[in-house]
Amino acid sequence: MKKILLIGAGKSSGYLIDYLLQHAVKDSYELTVADLDIQSALKKTQNRPHSKVISFNMQDNDQRENLIRDADVVISMLPAFMHMPVAKDCVRLKKHLVTASYVSSEISALHNEALQQDVLLLNETGLDPGIDHMSAMHIIDQIKEKQGTLYSFKSYCGGLVAPESNSNPWGYKFSWNPRNVIVAGQSTAQYLENGGYKFLPYQRLFASAEIIEVDGYGKFDAYANRDSLSYRKVYGIENVATILRGTLRQHPYCEAWNVFVMLGLTDDSFEIDLLENYTYADFFSAFLPIKGQNLEESLCLFLNKKTNDEIVKMIQWTGILENRVIGLKKASPAVILQKLLEEKWKLEPQDKDMVVMQHIFEYKNSSQKKKQITSTLVVLGENSDKTAMAKTVGLPMAIMVRKIINGQIKLRGVQIPVMPELYQPVLDELSQYGIVFQEKELEIE
Amino acid sequence: MKKILLIGAGKSSGYLIDYLLQHAVKDSYELTVADLDIQSALKKTQNRPHSKVISFNMQDNDQRENLIRDADVVISMLPAFMHMPVAKDCVRLKKHLVTASYVSSEISALHNEALQQDVLLLNETGLDPGIDHMSAMHIIDQIKEKQGTLYSFKSYCGGLVAPESNSNPWGYKFSWNPRNVIVAGQSTAQYLENGGYKFLPYQRLFASAEIIEVDGYGKFDAYANRDSLSYRKVYGIENVATILRGTLRQHPYCEAWNVFVMLGLTDDSFEIDLLENYTYADFFSAFLPIKGQNLEESLCLFLNKKTNDEIVKMIQWTGILENRVIGLKKASPAVILQKLLEEKWKLEPQDKDMVVMQHIFEYKNSSQKKKQITSTLVVLGENSDKTAMAKTVGLPMAIMVRKIINGQIKLRGVQIPVMPELYQPVLDELSQYGIVFQEKELEIE
Repeated sequence: MKKILLIGAGKSSGYLIDYLLQHAVKDSYELTVADLDIQSALKKTQNRPHSKVISFNMQDNDQRENLIRDADVVISMLPAFMHMPVAKDCVRLKKHLVTASYVSSEISALHNEALQQDVLLLNETGLDPGIDHMSAMHIIDQIKEKQGTLYSFKSYCGGLVAPESNSNPWGYKFSWNPRNVIVAGQSTAQYLENGGYKFLPYQRLFASAEIIEVDGYGKFDAYANRDSLSYRKVYGIENVATILRGTLRQHPYCEAWNVFVMLGLTDDSFEIDLLENYTYADFFSAFLPIKGQNLEESLCLFLNKKTNDEIVKMIQWTGILENRVIGLKKASPAVILQKLLEEKWKLEPQDKDMVVMQHIFEYKNSSQKKKQITSTLVVLGENSDKTAMAKTVGLPMAIMVRKIINGQIKLRGVQIPVMPELYQPVLDELSQYGIVFQEKELEIE
Repeated sequence: MKKILLIGAGKSSGYLIDYLLQHAVKDSYELTVADLDIQSALKKTQNRPHSKVISFNMQDNDQRENLIRDADVVISMLPAFMHMPVAKDCVRLKKHLVTASYVSSEISALHNEALQQDVLLLNETGLDPGIDHMSAMHIIDQIKEKQGTLYSFKSYCGGLVAPESNSNPWGYKFSWNPRNVIVAGQSTAQYLENGGYKFLPYQRLFASAEIIEVDGYGKFDAYANRDSLSYRKVYGIENVATILRGTLRQHPYCEAWNVFVMLGLTDDSFEIDLLENYTYADFFSAFLPIKGQNLEESLCLFLNKKTNDEIVKMIQWTGILENRVIGLKKASPAVILQKLLEEKWKLEPQDKDMVVMQHIFEYKNSSQKKKQITSTLVVLGENSDKTAMAKTVGLPMAIMVRKIINGQIKLRGVQIPVMPELYQPVLDELSQYGIVFQEKELEIE
């Protein structure tokens, strides 16, 4: 019997495990879930047939090696910086590896060795990166097939809260790693606009968000991701004049978040020695040029806004103007802000999250007419456990892993899912789970 | 005969060498100058009596060790990150060491060992850090002696261009490491104001500059330095309610520099692949939201200023709007900006630089009256070789070294010049060279 090894069974592994166990008996493979926390892993496998749970310590090289030697396909759901020892073992022991992480330069360097060992190291197979690649390449390849010339590609994705569970003025709750949200965007965004480079530093990133509309879901703010330029090569669209990838938030999240950015509250590069009973109000006022009678007035003066302004109300709602003790001894501004927002932006048990992805392609068709294709995905979660995030990360991985264990994928080396052989069967099967892009084509100009 | 070893004879070592050779015969010591560039070192010693020049490669551990073994006092003018091997040799071989650099945590860790070995490792003995400590502690100790209570301390320093050599709208030319000027301030400034922490991130640092006046020299912008909080302990003024250290520029430098900061042009964290014939105008427009008919109009729209505005003219003067090829292949924005400004802000052979330092102390005297002491130093250079910068860095070091070689300093361990034993004789002797602080005392309130 073939064996799949899943290393790390965190928050987002529910759908992944469910899918793999659903097909385990029929396809005759076994799934071993290796995690530090054996109880939480057992909750996910529920001892279903062909499942096994094992307590696993990443520091134990012998155990890791033995587990990998015993498997046919390995899935690493570890944090990205921990993939490397697993990937090295996989190449040496001739086992395929699947991750949802960006290909690091270290992983990339294993390509030739993986080819020699007849091994596939497949990365970027979750939501973003993952479904974004697959769905974009699906349309890019269609345009090429029709002799069209793509000249503009914009792509946006956001992990948000569903409208029915949206109970705060930010339209945001954490469905993913909070830290990433707090420090998002802290390096200059690079993209291409009408043939020229565009660079947008952190200090103007959120103020420069553009607004996009998603049918039935209203307005979203989109801020540019760190590196869009590299996707010209990744997607084989080197001659595109405009390329931009961005992150979505409910409008007007970005204008309000920019207040934190401009004050310096998202800084993670130094630590504050918090005095005893140091409050959020103390913290906030240490960053605010104090000119008013009280914090609220100072904030309004800083923003040049009135107290009933929407943005002022959003800041106030977080509780950062309150005389409540922070309860940390030494922490960076970003860590303090994260502590506050983890309380405020918590996804409650019955809350539904939402994943929104939108690609906008512009191309000239074979008769030189300009066309625009908008391709949109909206996935709603069921509750704080069965999130849209876990579903859209876990399902494409699981489908890919099943194709590999069943011998349906012949590709080898370090890869990401940008070729039809990889993306087509996954997109087809995802549609059975309600993960379907809506396409709209318009003539423009 | 006693021996002084100077390692590294860069731009700022002229005054240092001159002073030490002036007293070498009388005080019976010899000065060995060790540098990679033997010709440039010879230009400085001019083979004067008791001088020796030796070609020195920092990578050669044996040579370094032999040179240090042969010396009594070592001066390291190497870049700060290269001091450590020298410091370790000094402790082991029982030789005193003097540097102008900040005490790193590594150097700091040598304190006990240095005490055991009866060795002095004296750091921060140049201008800033150096003269700033000495002159500030001189007055802080005076206030303590008179039973006064210091409640506010602000201290500013700038390496600038003398008014008579000021030939550009920025009032600035490079008299020191250009790179430090380009990336200055890229971490949140921390200071204390009326008993409360204040934190000022890079994105608001230059926009928040305050204006100070120096008698006879007009208005200067002062932006806050990275860490003022630690000086409470360093200066023994833990109960001060306000403490701020800042850097001076000619007014309105900071408002104009902030344009570069906000556009992202000072970013050193990523590299741009420069296309062939990529010009400064291309570079500038990649950061500027283009909304006007041309670059100048776009800049004015971005700044909400008219074309004849002083700030707009300062930006234009740098040449960054010009269609001139940059001539680099791959570089960070900061490196590109530095290349442009090194051409524009060059100190010409006959140009005179200027060092300005000002401390502002506020204290209650023994009868609870509030007093303010302003202590100001202005030093003018002679030309681009004999700069005020080289003089104010080199002379206090040289004086300190001579006191040590003559056995007049008994202090041991890792030290900085904050105690009277160290600062008083140096301040006294500096005054003979025109390095004199002007003091003014006022009653306030």
